[in-house]
This record gives sequence, C-alpha cells and structure tokens, in this order.
Amino acid sequence: MNVQGTHYRTIRVMKENPAVVQIIDQRHLPHKFVIEDLSTVEEMAVAIKDMHARGAGLIGACAGYGIYLAAMNAPKDSVASFMSFIEESGKTLKATRPTAVNLAWAVDRQIEAVSAAGGNVESRIQTAFKTAGIIADEDAEFCRRIGEYGAEVIEEISKRKKGDTVNILTHCNAGWLAFVDYGTATAPIYEAYNRGIKVHVWVDETRPRNQGARLTAWELGEHGVPHSIIADNTGGHLMQHGMVDMVITGTDRTTYTGDVGNKIGTYLKALAAMDNGVPFYVALPSSTFDWKMKDGVAEIPIEQRDAAEVRTINGLYKSEIVTVQLAPDNSPGVNYAFDVTPARLVTGLITERGICDASAKGVLGLYPEKGV
Amino acid sequence: MNVQGTHYRTIRVMKENPAVVQIIDQRHLPHKFVIEDLSTVEEMAVAIKDMHARGAGLIGACAGYGIYLAAMNAPKDSVASFMSFIEESGKTLKATRPTAVNLAWAVDRQIEAVSAAGGNVESRIQTAFKTAGIIADEDAEFCRRIGEYGAEVIEEISKRKKGDTVNILTHCNAGWLAFVDYGTATAPIYEAYNRGIKVHVWVDETRPRNQGARLTAWELGEHGVPHSIIADNTGGHLMQHGMVDMVITGTDRTTYTGDVGNKIGTYLKALAAMDNGVPFYVALPSSTFDWKMKDGVAEIPIEQRDAAEVRTINGLYKSEIVTVQLAPDNSPGVNYAFDVTPARLVTGLITERGICDASAKGVLGLYPEKGV
Repeated sequence: MNVQGTHYRTIRVMKENPAVVQIIDQRHLPHKFVIEDLSTVEEMAVAIKDMHARGAGLIGACAGYGIYLAAMNAPKDSVASFMSFIEESGKTLKATRPTAVNLAWAVDRQIEAVSAAGGNVESRIQTAFKTAGIIADEDAEFCRRIGEYGAEVIEEISKRKKGDTVNILTHCNAGWLAFVDYGTATAPIYEAYNRGIKVHVWVDETRPRNQGARLTAWELGEHGVPHSIIADNTGGHLMQHGMVDMVITGTDRTTYTGDVGNKIGTYLKALAAMDNGVPFYVALPSSTFDWKMKDGVAEIPIEQRDAAEVRTINGLYKSEIVTVQLAPDNSPGVNYAFDVTPARLVTGLITERGICDASAKGVLGLYPEKGV
Repeated sequence: MNVQGTHYRTIRVMKENPAVVQIIDQRHLPHKFVIEDLSTVEEMAVAIKDMHARGAGLIGACAGYGIYLAAMNAPKDSVASFMSFIEESGKTLKATRPTAVNLAWAVDRQIEAVSAAGGNVESRIQTAFKTAGIIADEDAEFCRRIGEYGAEVIEEISKRKKGDTVNILTHCNAGWLAFVDYGTATAPIYEAYNRGIKVHVWVDETRPRNQGARLTAWELGEHGVPHSIIADNTGGHLMQHGMVDMVITGTDRTTYTGDVGNKIGTYLKALAAMDNGVPFYVALPSSTFDWKMKDGVAEIPIEQRDAAEVRTINGLYKSEIVTVQLAPDNSPGVNYAFDVTPARLVTGLITERGICDASAKGVLGLYPEKGV
C-alpha cells in the first residue's frame, strides 16, 4: 500500500543492489518511517526476533528472503558446503520465533526448493531468489483476493446506506504491515476505498501493545483512508448507537469449526456486535486454519506475556521513544495476549477462496480437500 | 481506608489547625502520595476544577468544606456581608464542574443551613463546619452500608467455593478515592477483606484515563487487598475460563428502571458476564439514581472528551510524570467517556438500603417514597 504517496511492500529486494533485502523497521512506527537494509541471514534473524518485522504473512516472507540472503553469503566452493550453510541458516531462522507457523513453513519450503533445484551453486542461488519471491507474491495475492471478496460486503452496505459512509471497526493490526501487502482485515477496506466507496474505520488502540494506534492507524492514514483511534472500551457504545456498520478482524488461528483465536479483546467486540445486530467478519488466508482443533475456547493455547506490557507503555516524548510507568510500584499486572471468539458470534470468514460460514460445514465447503 | 498502614479519609479538617482542610492531591497517584492543604474557597475551587479531587461523593464533600472555608474567610463586620460572601463563594464552587450533581446539591444544602441557622456570624461558621462534617459523614456511612450488603454476596460465593479466593472484576475507580471513605464498587470488597474472606480483584486499567491502574490498584494495594491490573480487553477471556466470580462496578447515573451509565467499557464487561453466567452488580448510593429517565441508552447524555486523552498518556519517566504520544501525528482520536449498560444485563443494584433488581419494581421497592 502507499506511504507518503509511494507504493511499498513490507519487504523487497533493493533495486540497486540485489544482495540487500529491505524491510520497514516497525519498531519506530508510527513516529518514524525507517527502511532497514539487511545483507545477511543473521541480520534477518535479529529483525524477526526483535520484531522489526512481525505478523504471520510477513514473517513467512522474511524467512524466505532470509534463506536467499544465506544463499548469497554461503561458501561457494562446493554444493555440499553451500547446502550445509543453508541448512544451518534455516535452523537459525526457525529459532527466532519458535511458535510462528509461517516461519518454519517458509524455511522448509525454501530448503526443499533449493535442494530439489540440483545443479551448481549459482543456479541454487537463483532458485532461492525465485522461491522467496513466490512466497511473498503468494502472500500478497491471497490478501488481494480476500480484499476483493470482502469489498463486496462493504459495497452492499454502502448501497443500502445510499452511498453514505460505511463505518468499519477493527481490532489490532491485521493490516499490510503484518503481511506483504493489503493485509487481511484491512484488505477489504483498502479495496473498497480504492473503488471509491466512502469508508471510515474505527481503530481500537489495542492495549497492551497498541498495535491499532501504532500500526493500523498509521497505515490507513498513509494510504489516505479516513479513520479514528478509539480506546478499546468504546466499540460497544458506538454499536449501541448505530455508529458501526460492520466489524472486520484478523486472526492468529481459527479452528475449522469457526472458533477464532485473535488479539485479546476481540471476543468483547464480537459480543457487542451480536447484541446490536452488527455483522462481525474475520479475514484470513487458509494457512491460518487449524484443521485439527474442534473447540477453540478449550483448545487454542493462550500466550501469557510479560506484565511489563500492561504496567508500562512506550510513546514519543521530546522526539524520543521512551517507556513510562502507568501502575503503582507494587501492583502486579497480568497479560493474556489472545482470546477466542466462539463461532456462534461470527457472521462469516473471508478467505482467499471466498466468504463462508464460521462452521465446519462452511469451511470444508470452501476447502473440501481438507475434509476429515 | 488505609494508606501505609494509617487510616485516611479523602478529605478532613487539619487536627492542628481547623482553618485548613486537607485533601489527597490525586493527580500524583499512584506515583506519589501528596496531601494538599487548602485555606480558602478559591483554593478548593481550583482543587475541584483541576481534579486534585474527583468522584461524585468526594466532590460533594469538597463543596461542603469549600463553603466552610468561605465562612472562615468571610467578612465578619455584618451578617449581610458575611452571607453575601458565602453566596458568591457558592457560585464559584458550582462553576468549577457544572455537571457534577453532588456539587450543586452540597453547596445549596450548606447555604440553606447557614441561612437557616440565624444568629451571629460566629454561630453561622459553626453551622458551616457542622454541615460540612454531616455531608462527609453521610457519604461515608452510605458507602459503609453498601459495603455490608455487598459483602454478603461475596461471602456466599466464598462459601460455595469452600473458602477459595473469590475473584472480582471491577472497572474504573468507584473506590474510596472517589468518595469520602470505602467507595461504592470497592466497599463490598473492603468489607469482605476486613472480615477475612479471601478475595482477589481484577482491575481494568480503564483507558483512556486509566483510573483503574492509577487509582483503584493503588488504593487496593495500600489497604492490602490482593489484585492484578489487566488491559481492558482481558475480562472476557477471564470470564470464559472461570477466572471471574463476580463483577462490581460503580455508576455515574442509573435510571430508576435500572439502566446503568458508567465509564466507557462497562457495557462490554456486562455482555461478557451475561455470556458466561457471571453475576454483574452495580453499587451506588441512592443519590445516583435518576428518578425521571426511563430508557438509559436513549436518554443518558454521553460526554465526549478531548481526543488528546486517547492520543497520549501520562506516566512516570525518570521520576517525573510526563505525557507521551501514542498515535500517529495525523490520526484523529475520538473519546466517549461513558456508556450505558441496559438493565437486562445487571444482576442487582447494591444500595445503602440493600440489594434490589435492576428494574423500576426493584428500585421503587427499596425507595417507595420516589414512586411515580
């Protein structure tokens, strides 16, 4: 999407020097827009581990380009030593964020492709380059399709409102910053906006890490989409008073039965949407489905993170990003990172193959090859 | 309640010098405990206006003691000039926070008492002193009774859990800092704790102004009550997993039909409580009932406050309280301060006369003299 009027992806090979991969160092957002140049697999590993780049889709693309950087820097005296360096690099990348499914998947896919390529070192480097590009392009293409399907829903609401602004609430950042382009929850919004439909986005700030205020607001603003940041407490009141036409969120893991694991607080918005007859959609590429779990509330593991994220916050003070303490010295904080929204509260799932009911029947209808 | 082991009220006349009224300057909490000495009605007006002291009950007590300070400093040459100074002072106080019902009520009650007292200036000063004390004592006594009634509910849950910890979730600060002592939502918790019942409080931080993290956590901690601060997004997840036994909140205005106006986000917690079979109680003195409004969602006016409260936050940085920016430069914030929880989501109202259903029948059953 656009930043200061120019189209960007979250990751790319530098035009002038193909030995350099560029990412947006998201730690500085929304206060500074910093492009980071990465020349080695170690630099990429740090970027993933320390969350310069984050988000399921983007981490997969980073892993793909991480192996490409490894290939560029690998010893070239023999195929065996080249491949051994690649395999070691894969382990380094996988260790950065052990629970990120896309990371391991992309590393394995790359190593398989480079192994299968056969031939000399040079042709294997070419394969790593191509495969990294394919992984990134696929991610962007899946998000683009999610955008097209989701935009139909927005367009319908717009027609019903006779062209009046469609107000969409979103939680956390399932935007293009978390993927290669478009995002998931944001893709329908960008597509509707690009089609000229009047939209306005209520952006939940999304405590404790504030990905909404920091990232979603920033990327919507840069692309020109009208939006307002609200405290996470606000959505229920807005829905009671007809100020929300639909909710779209992303998800970290959705069971094939339609239970949605996502950023803590998503469940509360789904309850308010149900109580007020507001449609509640979840956008996801099929890689986010868990094809084994049946009961999301009982089975999806919920990460507990450092209490410091609740007790403190980062912000801009005198042009520097500093951490301030919010809580009394001796009050503990508790920090659950995700919650699960039961399928009964979800109006529909927007995937790269279309929109379906949040149910095993709906999901397996779109993905019959996964039928169990 | 206790601070560092010593019992405090939020307002008192200085022992050593009855010409000085002391309050806790809450702007420094939770980082510093500052007692502020007030000697004139102007100083009290600043303290109310700039929110050194806040909360319905406490503002009423401040107004009462404000008139007492006015009486101490009024011209004493004639009753007429004394009374004229008192009346002017009443106007000054009322202008500080025009929407605070208790403020105007306490000022009027004081002026009426001082007028009715008759006699010389000296005896009128005595009346102002006594009336201020009565207003403060009544507030504390109503809260104490709310605590006794509410503690019964906690005790029942404790028995059902065979003495296991009772987990109570609260939102915002309806604690003793908002009243003269005990608080409303916190009163049952303090009473249960003082009776030796094992309790633990989930404290919603309560963005945007963070009264939960700043004030409720601080006062619970000072009194010794176990608690944990959570992001406002967290309560739904906790309730889904049996980690909340009951919710108690305060209210800024409750219709006699049982609709509850309270800090933004209360409605979301009530929805989650209903979805998970968790009892949801609201604690209030009868002065908080609106005896005219029938439909809270439609009728209770919802204040919109400065967007800066959403876009920024205050916290402790290098021993100073500073304001940091959270949002992108160009992203607007929208800041609704309250929402309304429909009576159908409320298990019961805890008042100074007992607990009743959140319905006209229930409320008028306790307050038959208000029958319409």
